[in-house]
Amino acid sequence: MDRNGIQEGSAQSDAVGELAEMLGPRGILTSPQDCARYASDQSGLSGVLPLAVLRPATTEEVSHILRICSRHHVGVVPQGGRTGLSGGACSPDGVVVLSTERMSGILEVDPEAMTLTTWAGTPLETVQEAARAAGLQYPVDIGARGTATIGGTIATNAGGIRVLQHGMTRASVLGLEAVLADGSVVSRLGKTVKDNSGFDLKQLFIGSEGTLGIVTRAVLQLCRHAPQTALALFALPDHAAALKCLAAARQRFGARIMAFEGMWPDYWDFVCHETSLAAAPVAGRHGFYLLIEIEAGSGGSEEELEAFFAELFEAEVVEDGVLAKSLGEMQALWRVREAVGEIDEDFGPHINFDIGVSPSELGRFCDAADALMADMPEVRGALKVGHVGDGNVHLIVAHDGSAVAEERIEVVIYGLLREWDGAVTAEHGIGRVKARWIAHSRTPEELALMRRLKAQLDPLGLLNPGAVLSAAD
Amino acid sequence: MDRNGIQEGSAQSDAVGELAEMLGPRGILTSPQDCARYASDQSGLSGVLPLAVLRPATTEEVSHILRICSRHHVGVVPQGGRTGLSGGACSPDGVVVLSTERMSGILEVDPEAMTLTTWAGTPLETVQEAARAAGLQYPVDIGARGTATIGGTIATNAGGIRVLQHGMTRASVLGLEAVLADGSVVSRLGKTVKDNSGFDLKQLFIGSEGTLGIVTRAVLQLCRHAPQTALALFALPDHAAALKCLAAARQRFGARIMAFEGMWPDYWDFVCHETSLAAAPVAGRHGFYLLIEIEAGSGGSEEELEAFFAELFEAEVVEDGVLAKSLGEMQALWRVREAVGEIDEDFGPHINFDIGVSPSELGRFCDAADALMADMPEVRGALKVGHVGDGNVHLIVAHDGSAVAEERIEVVIYGLLREWDGAVTAEHGIGRVKARWIAHSRTPEELALMRRLKAQLDPLGLLNPGAVLSAAD
Repeated sequence: MDRNGIQEGSAQSDAVGELAEMLGPRGILTSPQDCARYASDQSGLSGVLPLAVLRPATTEEVSHILRICSRHHVGVVPQGGRTGLSGGACSPDGVVVLSTERMSGILEVDPEAMTLTTWAGTPLETVQEAARAAGLQYPVDIGARGTATIGGTIATNAGGIRVLQHGMTRASVLGLEAVLADGSVVSRLGKTVKDNSGFDLKQLFIGSEGTLGIVTRAVLQLCRHAPQTALALFALPDHAAALKCLAAARQRFGARIMAFEGMWPDYWDFVCHETSLAAAPVAGRHGFYLLIEIEAGSGGSEEELEAFFAELFEAEVVEDGVLAKSLGEMQALWRVREAVGEIDEDFGPHINFDIGVSPSELGRFCDAADALMADMPEVRGALKVGHVGDGNVHLIVAHDGSAVAEERIEVVIYGLLREWDGAVTAEHGIGRVKARWIAHSRTPEELALMRRLKAQLDPLGLLNPGAVLSAAD
Repeated sequence: MDRNGIQEGSAQSDAVGELAEMLGPRGILTSPQDCARYASDQSGLSGVLPLAVLRPATTEEVSHILRICSRHHVGVVPQGGRTGLSGGACSPDGVVVLSTERMSGILEVDPEAMTLTTWAGTPLETVQEAARAAGLQYPVDIGARGTATIGGTIATNAGGIRVLQHGMTRASVLGLEAVLADGSVVSRLGKTVKDNSGFDLKQLFIGSEGTLGIVTRAVLQLCRHAPQTALALFALPDHAAALKCLAAARQRFGARIMAFEGMWPDYWDFVCHETSLAAAPVAGRHGFYLLIEIEAGSGGSEEELEAFFAELFEAEVVEDGVLAKSLGEMQALWRVREAVGEIDEDFGPHINFDIGVSPSELGRFCDAADALMADMPEVRGALKVGHVGDGNVHLIVAHDGSAVAEERIEVVIYGLLREWDGAVTAEHGIGRVKARWIAHSRTPEELALMRRLKAQLDPLGLLNPGAVLSAAD
């Protein structure tokens, strides 16, 4: 047994044998060809071929799996759609993968309570569509919506483009069922919005990336489907102007602001000019770009956004802008922002930082990072795009592909972040890729408490070993 | 040492002596006259005179207190404004009380980040006023706002009248500092809205009623202060009509619905007719009453509410209604709802149930409870008032004041609630009053996990002993 408590050799094959017997042929994959695609996620980290891929169909089977794996000391990596960017679903050596792909489907939509009950393996987009079919909306939205599963978005507390209006995934989870390392099932699938009857246990499983338990079912809070929205793109002199714009938008539109996305000129130029990933909706060079979406009000939201633009243009906060007049124009504006998902090939080897600081300090943090990187020969280019209202920037830094360059850039950027008391990951999660940097965002006391929780809930260290808290901490 | 691990006799006086030396004369009260008012809260439960009342002024002093109390095995009851309704701040035998009354004051308001940083002992109303002075709003609001502290509202995850729009207190806490039983300080006072860098530890301390740690400081998320609101009272045939009204309001006003409060005729008649606690804003007998508040839209919200009423009146969902035309009329309408805080003397001995069920089932649950109570001679009257959108009813049941009647009524109502899979407390908390009923809302697996968390974070059982999880479970 190694230091993580994970068993090797014959105990592993005993475990796989027992699992195969319990799950039946549809419930387990063991051939290297079948297992290969389950080794890694979208982080760029290469996983090791798992001992087996388990495909349980019920909560009871997940419970049985964890009992068997506990008995044999075999680690379990839970997997949803493998769209994570931090390696949380990559398999280390000597583990089984537990995929929720057969635990899929909507269990109920309750329009009066505005809730949706679902299996963890249901794709996010399926949930969004089921909500829409009931005239409602599930507000969590990310680019990987077609593949990412609800269980994965809960385990990673996914963020995305609607956080300003609706919060992170945590804010939309009403009820949850999870299986602990010892196989016990902790289930609370009520639709009760308010429930202070003891500790709120579901919070343990939201955002802990499968290290404290495996999510099997959830009750989600739906909200109204905005009947009509308006979308505009503003060009501004700098990030400080974007903050003024945000304050003015909050005064004018309040909770009707659906998205408030920011793009720095480095990113804008790359997707609109250096590549043909998107067409530039406004001409000329500007210091900052904002994509603003609001829910329609009784006054007609396009007119409202137009009046808002006029006021800010008059006050010299905004330099230029364009208002989408059709669904096609809306898609074209969103395209500039969503092109971030396709820069990979054109931009070369890079690190995708997912940084969170106080929203009021985001611009100054980016300036400080740019100043540091200007002196670094390792840096071949940097793009910045993010969520202005949330204090979250995706800083994408190109380098020569060497481990040395990567290390040096990470040391500098995470070092700066530590000085700013920011988050090494705002929404992508720690996973395995950022586990070595967690102490840049957390105090020794916080890490000690995390380890105490992990030791209490998973004393053998079987659940997603190496994710979030690495053994080296 | 008794079964809770709490020390008795000379060890207690050793502990008090050490605490007095560390805290100095302003930091500790020991005379029975001074300590008496700290024994109980607003639950009606009588606490025992504490060994001493500790009044730390800093986080460091709280840490020292917990180290000393751990060494001597002396239990600690944390206290904010003692406005709780579940006995969570009542002191059992042989403990010290830790009051946050000297850890009071706003530390910072950041208008750009829309955050407010405060000591735990600051009254809720002081926080609300500081937010308003910056043109913003702290949305958590409860009747006890003048006395309840921020720390207390966080420890109990307070609900109130703005939950429909802004969620429970949990949704407004961005950063938190808490002291564990062993004196270690877990502090994360950043203003970062999005932070997935490891487990979200603050969730442990929100709503756990001081049993896992003592909250010392917090960063709160502020929101826009609605420039203008409109308020109406609708009279309807029954609760089913109120649900129709809610669905229609959500379609029309979306996130602009600020309050959606329900009153059953038993409550209405008691405050408006049987007593003079409030004046009836509409005449005649109706099956249900709704207080609806919305944020002003660009169309002028009074006109919007009027049009909304006309549509529902036409559809025979609403029977009558009144729209507040002035601040005075708004206060008069709110008065009917807020009179619930003053029924005590007129209504005689009673149990204040704080029940949560699925919002879609709230009306049927209340009908079922009424049907059961109709056959119970112990029941002298019942009033129902609550938060329609949240599935939360305050069912107030009068009895003869005997323990036998109280027991019988609790057995029946909580028994019914168990069948409906509801919450024995939606917003008031378990405290000491409801600790014996927690298993009616939680499975054995959930309770086992709660006990594991408690054992890990507070192995000696010193933090708020007897609250939430009783030793008898």
